[in-house]
Amino acid sequence: MLYFVNDYSAGCHEKVMQRLVETNLEKQAVYGEDIYSLSAKEKIRKACDCENAEIVFISGGTQTNQLAIDSLLLPHEGVVCAESGHINVHESGAIEYTGHKVLTLPEHDGKIDAGELRDFMQRFYADENYEHCVFPGLVYITFPTEFGALYSRKELEALRKVCDEYKLSLYMDGARLGYGLACRENELTLADIARLTDAFYIGGNKVGALFGEALVFTKNNMPRHFITHVKRHGALMAKGRVLGVQFDALFTDDLYMEIGRHAMRLADKLRAAFEEKGYQFFKKTPTNQIIIVVDDEKKAELEKKVAFSFWEKLDDTHTAIRFVTDWATREEDVDALIELL
Amino acid sequence: MLYFVNDYSAGCHEKVMQRLVETNLEKQAVYGEDIYSLSAKEKIRKACDCENAEIVFISGGTQTNQLAIDSLLLPHEGVVCAESGHINVHESGAIEYTGHKVLTLPEHDGKIDAGELRDFMQRFYADENYEHCVFPGLVYITFPTEFGALYSRKELEALRKVCDEYKLSLYMDGARLGYGLACRENELTLADIARLTDAFYIGGNKVGALFGEALVFTKNNMPRHFITHVKRHGALMAKGRVLGVQFDALFTDDLYMEIGRHAMRLADKLRAAFEEKGYQFFKKTPTNQIIIVVDDEKKAELEKKVAFSFWEKLDDTHTAIRFVTDWATREEDVDALIELL
Amino acid sequence: MLYFVNDYSAGCHEKVMQRLVETNLEKQAVYGEDIYSLSAKEKIRKACDCENAEIVFISGGTQTNQLAIDSLLLPHEGVVCAESGHINVHESGAIEYTGHKVLTLPEHDGKIDAGELRDFMQRFYADENYEHCVFPGLVYITFPTEFGALYSRKELEALRKVCDEYKLSLYMDGARLGYGLACRENELTLADIARLTDAFYIGGNKVGALFGEALVFTKNNMPRHFITHVKRHGALMAKGRVLGVQFDALFTDDLYMEIGRHAMRLADKLRAAFEEKGYQFFKKTPTNQIIIVVDDEKKAELEKKVAFSFWEKLDDTHTAIRFVTDWATREEDVDALIELL
Amino acid sequence: MLYFVNDYSAGCHEKVMQRLVETNLEKQAVYGEDIYSLSAKEKIRKACDCENAEIVFISGGTQTNQLAIDSLLLPHEGVVCAESGHINVHESGAIEYTGHKVLTLPEHDGKIDAGELRDFMQRFYADENYEHCVFPGLVYITFPTEFGALYSRKELEALRKVCDEYKLSLYMDGARLGYGLACRENELTLADIARLTDAFYIGGNKVGALFGEALVFTKNNMPRHFITHVKRHGALMAKGRVLGVQFDALFTDDLYMEIGRHAMRLADKLRAAFEEKGYQFFKKTPTNQIIIVVDDEKKAELEKKVAFSFWEKLDDTHTAIRFVTDWATREEDVDALIELL
Repeated sequence: MLYFVNDYSAGCHEKVMQRLVETNLEKQAVYGEDIYSLSAKEKIRKACDCENAEIVFISGGTQTNQLAIDSLLLPHEGVVCAESGHINVHESGAIEYTGHKVLTLPEHDGKIDAGELRDFMQRFYADENYEHCVFPGLVYITFPTEFGALYSRKELEALRKVCDEYKLSLYMDGARLGYGLACRENELTLADIARLTDAFYIGGNKVGALFGEALVFTKNNMPRHFITHVKRHGALMAKGRVLGVQFDALFTDDLYMEIGRHAMRLADKLRAAFEEKGYQFFKKTPTNQIIIVVDDEKKAELEKKVAFSFWEKLDDTHTAIRFVTDWATREEDVDALIELL
Repeated sequence: MLYFVNDYSAGCHEKVMQRLVETNLEKQAVYGEDIYSLSAKEKIRKACDCENAEIVFISGGTQTNQLAIDSLLLPHEGVVCAESGHINVHESGAIEYTGHKVLTLPEHDGKIDAGELRDFMQRFYADENYEHCVFPGLVYITFPTEFGALYSRKELEALRKVCDEYKLSLYMDGARLGYGLACRENELTLADIARLTDAFYIGGNKVGALFGEALVFTKNNMPRHFITHVKRHGALMAKGRVLGVQFDALFTDDLYMEIGRHAMRLADKLRAAFEEKGYQFFKKTPTNQIIIVVDDEKKAELEKKVAFSFWEKLDDTHTAIRFVTDWATREEDVDALIELL
Repeated sequence: MLYFVNDYSAGCHEKVMQRLVETNLEKQAVYGEDIYSLSAKEKIRKACDCENAEIVFISGGTQTNQLAIDSLLLPHEGVVCAESGHINVHESGAIEYTGHKVLTLPEHDGKIDAGELRDFMQRFYADENYEHCVFPGLVYITFPTEFGALYSRKELEALRKVCDEYKLSLYMDGARLGYGLACRENELTLADIARLTDAFYIGGNKVGALFGEALVFTKNNMPRHFITHVKRHGALMAKGRVLGVQFDALFTDDLYMEIGRHAMRLADKLRAAFEEKGYQFFKKTPTNQIIIVVDDEKKAELEKKVAFSFWEKLDDTHTAIRFVTDWATREEDVDALIELL
Repeated sequence: MLYFVNDYSAGCHEKVMQRLVETNLEKQAVYGEDIYSLSAKEKIRKACDCENAEIVFISGGTQTNQLAIDSLLLPHEGVVCAESGHINVHESGAIEYTGHKVLTLPEHDGKIDAGELRDFMQRFYADENYEHCVFPGLVYITFPTEFGALYSRKELEALRKVCDEYKLSLYMDGARLGYGLACRENELTLADIARLTDAFYIGGNKVGALFGEALVFTKNNMPRHFITHVKRHGALMAKGRVLGVQFDALFTDDLYMEIGRHAMRLADKLRAAFEEKGYQFFKKTPTNQIIIVVDDEKKAELEKKVAFSFWEKLDDTHTAIRFVTDWATREEDVDALIELL
């Protein structure tokens, strides 16, 4: 079976695994004070060109979003995101569990528009009863989005500008950040992201780690005693070294970007094949998720040999389906899939 | 340096690591539906002699306690535990974060007494204003306790009886369960624990896993759609297989017990040496934590060659210090330490 | 100044005040066990033709919604309501504060449509990842709605049917219930509402009470030890008698309905005048809120002599404004206003 | 029946009721913007000699404590109080509901000791794992305490000093503040309290109001957009005027102190009678709660003609019972009671 279901079905990149094995029996300091965590943080600071960045490693994405957003919001504030935002639809109400409302804007391939954000803020403060409403306090974006789209530099700068005007924090969910950074259409570097956001996370779970994400605060804005916040959320790993070793490996010899480039090269190859063979795209986005429209006959035929994911039933005879490449995708599998199209 | 600081400073047992490596590139179902998680659950059910046990793997102990307790309590209820209970002192208020109060009883080497629990419940219902108080809803115990003590069978049965009388759930934190089970003084089997508690967790973090705990509901009492509860807490791992593979390994060929026996054999050897050499025990408990009293001169001398943990300053010249053995402790290190005593 | 701003700017109906004065120095049992609370509950049970109804008096509407919804939802569930629902827009995130998400449907004069609710539920369960989403657990409706509209009997029965199909609770916010019940177009009795909902509240704050709402559970579904839930929310009044006396007065000699009829008669008179004089209605709804469109010149002219509320700026020269009648509105003021139109 | 059960069984002082009646039909601004709320706040500022005091009126004491403490604590902080503190025992876990732990100190007639607080703080920071614990962030005291005791000026200043040393907020629950201020043994003025605390509340429910408390922030420390915090807690009254009118009356012509003096004069008379007749005091405290020890025969005899409250069963034949005076207590009832002793 050719496997294109998602980017978190395999374990981790061999170089990450190798480091876990090599360091396994070392006795290390706990709760993130081990030498690997310290080294990984230093490497990430350099990669972000942000020497004051404060970094915490967390086991998964929902946990990271929940912790970061809850910590950056004041009690009377909520988080603004696209209707399609992961926190709004697929995190089981993890944000609301922390007591905060998710406020939504229209989505454009999963992105929000700076102009619409400004309108939203203007309407908010124009309502004379705004103190009876939830104050927008932070903007949540995904990069790449849930549909695989990327913000251009101009778009991200425009969002930053509105955030500054209205004193909103800007937070980026980078679950698939490596694939976004390595995308040929991408205009943003890690340093840009560090500069333009208040916090973001570098996804590991979907980008070569066994598990784990690196939450980065870029503006000296990590809450004091943040480790206590983390533990209170149940999110502090005793063996922080397990996360540290992985991110240290991912940020050694450009591995994180290498992983991204590998997946993107194969995604581009596959996307080109779909295009050439006349498939219609459900959303035409440039990263490692390819969502196409097929008739159900073709779908049934493909299912015999290929594992992909169902996206949405479109009409009686057509379905949107998704193919994903990642660090573990083999070129021969992409070629075999192309043969079947 | 001889290392006896704690039982979570190394990575994982070699057999666990071996399985992680072997299965690394397999594509597996996500969110705990992989074959290793299913297999591990089946093995745990057998080990517990509890065929209906419902099991969920969670990354860490605080997360597990928070999730289990929050899920088993009704809104107006709180959790009863020893004053020294981990949830009461060292989890940064993770229980209160879920909206529930921790109600405390006196501790006896970290244990609570069934008679004192009954008195507490009687006093609770004797107060005519009890509806203005937090209802005790669940009893939290640790096995071994934070001091290394074990409940005897009789003690646990007595607690169960009081819980039945007052319709309280009984939940056991088994962070170091493997060391308790393998202790020579221990009277309880996994099957006893499954029978006498409503839920408990089998600790992996401190007992040979890279990370992870197995939360076991034993009375068909896992809340419906529990996976949604888990995700809402930010605790659902996308690659559940990473936990599944580990617990599958730990419950294959008796590895979990083998790990326990290894640590206990070395702890017993070390304890005997302390005794023989006339050291005073701070708490005389039978498991893998040995807490002794030393004068500060001896402490300074030991610190040159041995890493151990500070427990408590006792007076101007004496300190309680703790030595811990685990799956990774080497016999030659124990012998070398004994030489130094 | 003629006063039509809202229905909660004056104190309370004279008969309510009279009873507060008459009973003022009596020593009564506290926390809602006083004879007036007991009597009021009995009268409400009769008025609802629901002899098992369980009733709790709460100081305000947001508090009541927060408490009722939090208590009726399971942890993994959220509340479904119209986009315009009061809990969604004007309660400062009070529902999210309890940890639950508000899920929205389109609004039709503030109402939700049973067909759209069914579609929503079908889509929910059709998503194979629904366990990663918030489960709809309760439907929140307002009667009259925020725009003054009423559900017909057929509409409410249709909602009930969908709720039954999907095991959803149905909860009605009756902040202005008295005005809805007394409306000439209304088809529903208190008994209908008790029969068709799982819980609802009878608004006092806007309908003649000094303050207070009566929360009614109609299906033996008040959580056990609910008084503890109430206190935990900070919502238990020590002098419950203050609420009891008021509701006892409101449900004596049909006062609650009399108040409703008074306000509705004047609202109808005013609405007819607007119509006759050719004013355009922003929303044509039948209860005590009348929202019309005026050009800004007329608005400025009216403002000199009349207090009304701003609703929405429509374009450069037109504005929607709202006139509200209530138990305290005087007929001479309505006549004077009509003169000015 | 002579009534001495508690201080919240009657309605409100006649002067408060009179003002409610007189202002009843006035149309006033809502949500606390009415002229009476503004006037009451100004009078309270003067009474506290604290011109920057920020004041919010809240319906009840638990609500006020919950709101104030939740708003003043950071996420990783908890509140320190006496074991007997109302928030710790009789508020159904309302503080924990907001996500914060209650940390306890020994009680001395319901008071905490500055030296013990300092020791507690020293021990906290001496624990090298303090980041795994809940940070003490605010100290909660009651004045008078639950047993009727008062802090001397020296005691309160000593607490303030420790709070300053450790950057803790100091918050006073003044449910019975009026009785404390009017007590002959009292050394503290409202101005002292405003100066020495960061926030406190002036109790109305037990001191002559129909209901309501005045929460006072004294150090320009009311959180921004606090009205939104209040509403999010479900605690914002639409008709804020009802609270404003009452506190305006209470702080006109020294009524609040007059009420206190009335109750204290009668309490002192009653206490002297108990003393003279040789009764033993359970706690000898100077305010309006008198707790004595009686044998059960005497108790049964008194119960025929007097309503008092049960405090605690002491042994097989003795019970502690409580007599309370308040604004509504009549001198003839005190005299009649004294006859019965």
